[in-house]
Amino acid sequence: MSAPLLLVYPGNETLADALVAQLACDVAALALHHFPDGETLVTLPAVKDREVLLLCSLDRPDAKLAPLLFAADAARDLGATRVGLIAPYLAYMRQDRRFHPGEAVTSRSFAGVISHHFDFLATVDPHLHRYHDLAEIYSIPARAVSSAAAIAAWIRREVKQPLLVGPDEESAQWIEAVAALEGLPHTVLTKTRHDDFNVEVSLPDAGRWAGLTPVLVDDIVSSAHTMIAAAGSLKKMGLAAPVCVGVHALFGGTAYAELKAAGAARIATCNCVPHDSNAIDVMPALADGLAALLKTA
Amino acid sequence: MSAPLLLVYPGNETLADALVAQLACDVAALALHHFPDGETLVTLPAVKDREVLLLCSLDRPDAKLAPLLFAADAARDLGATRVGLIAPYLAYMRQDRRFHPGEAVTSRSFAGVISHHFDFLATVDPHLHRYHDLAEIYSIPARAVSSAAAIAAWIRREVKQPLLVGPDEESAQWIEAVAALEGLPHTVLTKTRHDDFNVEVSLPDAGRWAGLTPVLVDDIVSSAHTMIAAAGSLKKMGLAAPVCVGVHALFGGTAYAELKAAGAARIATCNCVPHDSNAIDVMPALADGLAALLKTA
Repeated sequence: MSAPLLLVYPGNETLADALVAQLACDVAALALHHFPDGETLVTLPAVKDREVLLLCSLDRPDAKLAPLLFAADAARDLGATRVGLIAPYLAYMRQDRRFHPGEAVTSRSFAGVISHHFDFLATVDPHLHRYHDLAEIYSIPARAVSSAAAIAAWIRREVKQPLLVGPDEESAQWIEAVAALEGLPHTVLTKTRHDDFNVEVSLPDAGRWAGLTPVLVDDIVSSAHTMIAAAGSLKKMGLAAPVCVGVHALFGGTAYAELKAAGAARIATCNCVPHDSNAIDVMPALADGLAALLKTA
Repeated sequence: MSAPLLLVYPGNETLADALVAQLACDVAALALHHFPDGETLVTLPAVKDREVLLLCSLDRPDAKLAPLLFAADAARDLGATRVGLIAPYLAYMRQDRRFHPGEAVTSRSFAGVISHHFDFLATVDPHLHRYHDLAEIYSIPARAVSSAAAIAAWIRREVKQPLLVGPDEESAQWIEAVAALEGLPHTVLTKTRHDDFNVEVSLPDAGRWAGLTPVLVDDIVSSAHTMIAAAGSLKKMGLAAPVCVGVHALFGGTAYAELKAAGAARIATCNCVPHDSNAIDVMPALADGLAALLKTA
């Protein structure tokens, strides 16, 4: 049996390079041509009798969906044995319930569409909040690998005397898990809301952390408001400029520039969403997860 | 049983106004909120026990697809009895075969996705070239209504001494059908290709048409290149400035301005794709088609 074919959605070339270094596979580009009328022409390389792994990180997902589905259908139509989706960032995980009447539960719809067109899915740290497993909404074999080991090793290697800081209580469990992997000191900022406009952020046992470099760690960095607020709080408390670590570098609008301006000593993200700040390689973990899927799916 | 609910995708408000004038139904807006991270929040009005008609013309379809599918799923989830799609312009009909190796046959994929999420479909003059019926690719009841009567009546009413002119041989059958409805004179431009760079366009029996106003009619006006070339040819032959009529006003980029500049006396399109040039009301025909679908589907 021939090696799987990694089919690279435009924009994911740097992720592909990193993944290919870890996974025995061939690589080819998915070609997209955007017509002036707003439709897309999708062209595949030869895939007959191949297992196809379509690599497409799903930040800014709406415009990607149609070409993605066309590519999956075409791969099967052209003779691929199976078509899997590798989405290092998986979209639409945050709308996991109907928060207000009439809202679409897009996490479930999106999962339905992907499950209908692909045979299996691999991703990195999907935002599992009210769902506890991708299997609750994805009906295909779906593997979520963790970035924690890659992040912990990067911090141990790159930051002198690090103190892991979770930007809010929600991040506590995640911060503990990352810290435990390398035995790093860690804490979580706590918020006290006085009224709508006054929120006090405090660091437990602030006195204990003198001389350490705070490392703020969060999963999705989108508006970066949480991290910017946390960086501001640390500064007020007299700590050193923080290193900011994110798993998924969404950075909408001017968020990246704002986070830099807020006093981040360094911004490092995992290579899940292609971005200038990518510094932490999660592809070894993703390749391991894929190997398991390719055997069992 | 209550009247159907017309659910209006943002941007289709003028089409909705015209349709509601012809169809007994209630109307409500589909609310879309675009998050900074590129995801969309979709919110529906009350649809429980209602038949929902989602109105969304499918020009520039890629960015519309995800919210459209979310809305259909949510309508069903919130208790709608059936969910139909009204797409006065139906996208992805032109890629009706694999023109080059490896190409996705997007017409078929797109039809599959729509058929999976909706219960029925109504549209106006889909681009049926190699397919002869929507049923070849849509697995749901799908009704294509014709704009020909609305166009013929408009020309009879608005243009003095019209001569219908098809811009190329492909348009011949369509032009004859429109002309026959009002007994209008008609002809088709013929192309003689001398080499790659020299194409001669000629008008059969040019002498017969003195004093008439040429009316160029085409189905999809996208780049408008065909119509611009035809307008230029008519001018060279000494005819009056043409009235340009299109069914689907896609007008990519600067196409509309270019067509004006090419000497169109007037540009009139059907209200299938919302555009400043909309002047020909196809909603009576669409409402008739819908009434038949609502009875039988």
